[in-house]
Amino acid sequence: MSAAAVWSVDPRTGKPREQVGTEATAADVDRAVRAAHATREALADRAVRAAFLRTAADLLDASVDEVVATADAETALGSPRLTGELARTSGQLRAFAAVVEDGAYLDVRIDLPDPSAVPPRPDLRRWKIPLGVVAVYAASNFPLAFSVPGGDTASALAAGCPVVVKAHPGHPATSELTAALLRRAAAKAGLPEDVVVLVHGFDAGVELVRHPLVAAAGFTGSVRGGRALFDAAVARPVPIPFHGELGSLNPVVITPGALAERAEETGAGLAGSMTLGAGQFCTKPGFVLAPAGPDGDRFLAALTEGVARAGAAVLLDHRMRAAFVDGVAERAALDGVEAPVVPGAADEHTVTPGVLTVDAARLAAGEHALLLEECFGPVTVVARYADETEITAVLGRLPGNLTATLHCAEEDPAAPGLLAALTPLAGRVLVGGWPTGVAVAAAQHHGGPYPATTSTATSVGATAIERWLRPIAYQSTPQHLLPPELRDDNPPAVPRG
Amino acid sequence: MSAAAVWSVDPRTGKPREQVGTEATAADVDRAVRAAHATREALADRAVRAAFLRTAADLLDASVDEVVATADAETALGSPRLTGELARTSGQLRAFAAVVEDGAYLDVRIDLPDPSAVPPRPDLRRWKIPLGVVAVYAASNFPLAFSVPGGDTASALAAGCPVVVKAHPGHPATSELTAALLRRAAAKAGLPEDVVVLVHGFDAGVELVRHPLVAAAGFTGSVRGGRALFDAAVARPVPIPFHGELGSLNPVVITPGALAERAEETGAGLAGSMTLGAGQFCTKPGFVLAPAGPDGDRFLAALTEGVARAGAAVLLDHRMRAAFVDGVAERAALDGVEAPVVPGAADEHTVTPGVLTVDAARLAAGEHALLLEECFGPVTVVARYADETEITAVLGRLPGNLTATLHCAEEDPAAPGLLAALTPLAGRVLVGGWPTGVAVAAAQHHGGPYPATTSTATSVGATAIERWLRPIAYQSTPQHLLPPELRDDNPPAVPRG
Repeated sequence: MSAAAVWSVDPRTGKPREQVGTEATAADVDRAVRAAHATREALADRAVRAAFLRTAADLLDASVDEVVATADAETALGSPRLTGELARTSGQLRAFAAVVEDGAYLDVRIDLPDPSAVPPRPDLRRWKIPLGVVAVYAASNFPLAFSVPGGDTASALAAGCPVVVKAHPGHPATSELTAALLRRAAAKAGLPEDVVVLVHGFDAGVELVRHPLVAAAGFTGSVRGGRALFDAAVARPVPIPFHGELGSLNPVVITPGALAERAEETGAGLAGSMTLGAGQFCTKPGFVLAPAGPDGDRFLAALTEGVARAGAAVLLDHRMRAAFVDGVAERAALDGVEAPVVPGAADEHTVTPGVLTVDAARLAAGEHALLLEECFGPVTVVARYADETEITAVLGRLPGNLTATLHCAEEDPAAPGLLAALTPLAGRVLVGGWPTGVAVAAAQHHGGPYPATTSTATSVGATAIERWLRPIAYQSTPQHLLPPELRDDNPPAVPRG
Repeated sequence: MSAAAVWSVDPRTGKPREQVGTEATAADVDRAVRAAHATREALADRAVRAAFLRTAADLLDASVDEVVATADAETALGSPRLTGELARTSGQLRAFAAVVEDGAYLDVRIDLPDPSAVPPRPDLRRWKIPLGVVAVYAASNFPLAFSVPGGDTASALAAGCPVVVKAHPGHPATSELTAALLRRAAAKAGLPEDVVVLVHGFDAGVELVRHPLVAAAGFTGSVRGGRALFDAAVARPVPIPFHGELGSLNPVVITPGALAERAEETGAGLAGSMTLGAGQFCTKPGFVLAPAGPDGDRFLAALTEGVARAGAAVLLDHRMRAAFVDGVAERAALDGVEAPVVPGAADEHTVTPGVLTVDAARLAAGEHALLLEECFGPVTVVARYADETEITAVLGRLPGNLTATLHCAEEDPAAPGLLAALTPLAGRVLVGGWPTGVAVAAAQHHGGPYPATTSTATSVGATAIERWLRPIAYQSTPQHLLPPELRDDNPPAVPRG
């Protein structure tokens, strides 16, 4: 049996562009994992890793035209967005180089012996070591920043873990191109190229998470796919950590006070956020609680107008387009659901962004659970409430989220209570603004209660490196046998807790 | 149907002492979890939590006679050991009070806005919040330090999480007594008593981990029981973190150089460590690689003599006694296994500690996998090797461990390579000494690769609190809506990263 071909497809036409490889067989996956596993010792040197990550960033920047053109041809995300995403991606690689050099992430703690303690305390020195080979499952919607050269890969390599990436089928050519850049950067830094290995294919992804030498996994994608891989990861004879970002509704609560101050601005802002990148952000505001009444009508009119003006959009691939068309149709058909701008198919390759509305009272009463599930693409559901008890009842039915947003007046008596109700629902809480931008910052948290993520870790920001490490304590170990970072003379200097 | 009675049993006689309650039904578990869940807001104040933990420590210390007598009557661990364990337990409660007050565990990070960043960075403020109700599964072998008032409970309460403890059936009276002390301490600190709720019964334990309002679990026990609960935790519609300590062989590698320096001392030291607490420590050295030849013979003679002198011991309960007697018999019957001191039944209620020996070559060749599984109780397996390649081959077959110990000469050419081979196998690596003491210290790590633990977290030391928290970031949130710890004026002061 010959291996299945992997094709790069143009979502603007639905036509294949080129064959970029074949799907990996079980034997291919085994070879890929063993090749990556064999590079662990080479990756142990922090200075070499930092140089590697910086070289990778430089090569990515130097290839911006080719990478952006390839990614755009496969994803239709457009050159400006992809150019920005590439800058974010190379910036992320450089940020992790700095994290590795700094060494604070090693979380070094030293307790000198104390024979008078009960029980007596020996010499104890703890730091963190890499887990081993990390499987990275690339996202559809960020072909760079959350794919082959993205945050999971960058943080795992920074931690000292080799990476086997399972490419997303929506952008295999971009995956090949960026994997080749990473491998070239490794070679330039004096590392084996197999510190990063790429595989294609759905079955290969399942094989990968089950492989005995895979020590952890990072995933960005759907609830269905992510949960299946999570289940496989935890059912192994030796379960492994699975850091998955699965799905998020990203609720927005808008108070009457907010709309009294700025109904039109709020509606227009929401239209911009929910149609950004054709509504294909994990942080797209997909569910909005807005008041009934005249201010709410003005808000809705501005939202409707903004969304209508956004025009038809090409989604990442035709599979997603079909899921969107089906998903919005199923929601729009629910009793009491209206569509001031009807989302759905535009022409054969594009979709129309849209807005669905419903009385919050129905959701508060337990109806229409489907409206509380993420619909990937440019649609948002506005649930209009009569009073705060309806808000509370609806929030009580929501699953976990990456973000939750509150729009309130400057002095709003409802704000403290609503913020307290939103906090358990999300990993990032915004007051004003929109959740679609995810700044790379030390105080950032990109994660949230299930199904937003399958762990309490973040996948954005410096602390994302923590996912690929485990602590180890050395007891009564002579200086010459300790890693340099744990010795009394501590060269090179590393921060100590 | 009436609920099953829960009996306290004297392991020295096998006779019931008293009925201490009944097994919790599903409805009881539901009530327990809901009662605990209702206390979350009361637990939000850090100063109150710290006072509560200190009061609990004081009440425990003040009840030392009653607690130790009760625990000894149920576990036969003896008054000196249990008095020490109580001091460790109250010390641990006070240590977590200090952790709560200090606030560094909140991991506060603040990024001020930077409009020039790409993408622009808004005001971001991150800290950690409690997960919710924590289920704690108490251990058999530490009726205090790893049971009702133990590290899991103390760290969860410190984090602000209410706790439902599933009592270990081996010491239900001690569980009731210490739970009552914790609840009394809560009341004295102005908290609802239901911040800690106790349930009994195997089925209750399964119900507990499946309850929708349980947000995380801590477990100390067997691989079989722990894995079953882990599987239930991750199979939930909303999976929860399960921090389980399941089982550990705690391998020891002894070089020829070590024995040339101190064969008798090493043998005697091992005898002391493996019979401590009747061999019922999670960190008991259960597997030893020692050289063949005359120095190895002297080591083995000293070990044998020490173990023989230890005399008969009462195990924690008759179920464990039966498992030990069967487990050592099954191992001793393997081809090529010898027993210089035969472990097994002494009289009707006691067991004899023992030593099993085998040629490491057999294990290196893949035989006798059973010898590489933990056998709970006073027995250790000494595998005698001819050369270092046998050591490497055997280490390659070992599962994950809490600890790994190397005994080497002061200048030992084999030491660096062996230490590198032991590091991937354990969470704590010792050079010299024995693993049975687990100091409570900032640099401690009590955890290790599966099946030692099911996560990369520690269950001993200040960082054990991290298991019960998740990060949350507030974006563009006005000062008056932020938690005090995240405001610019920051009263009371909390460290910021």
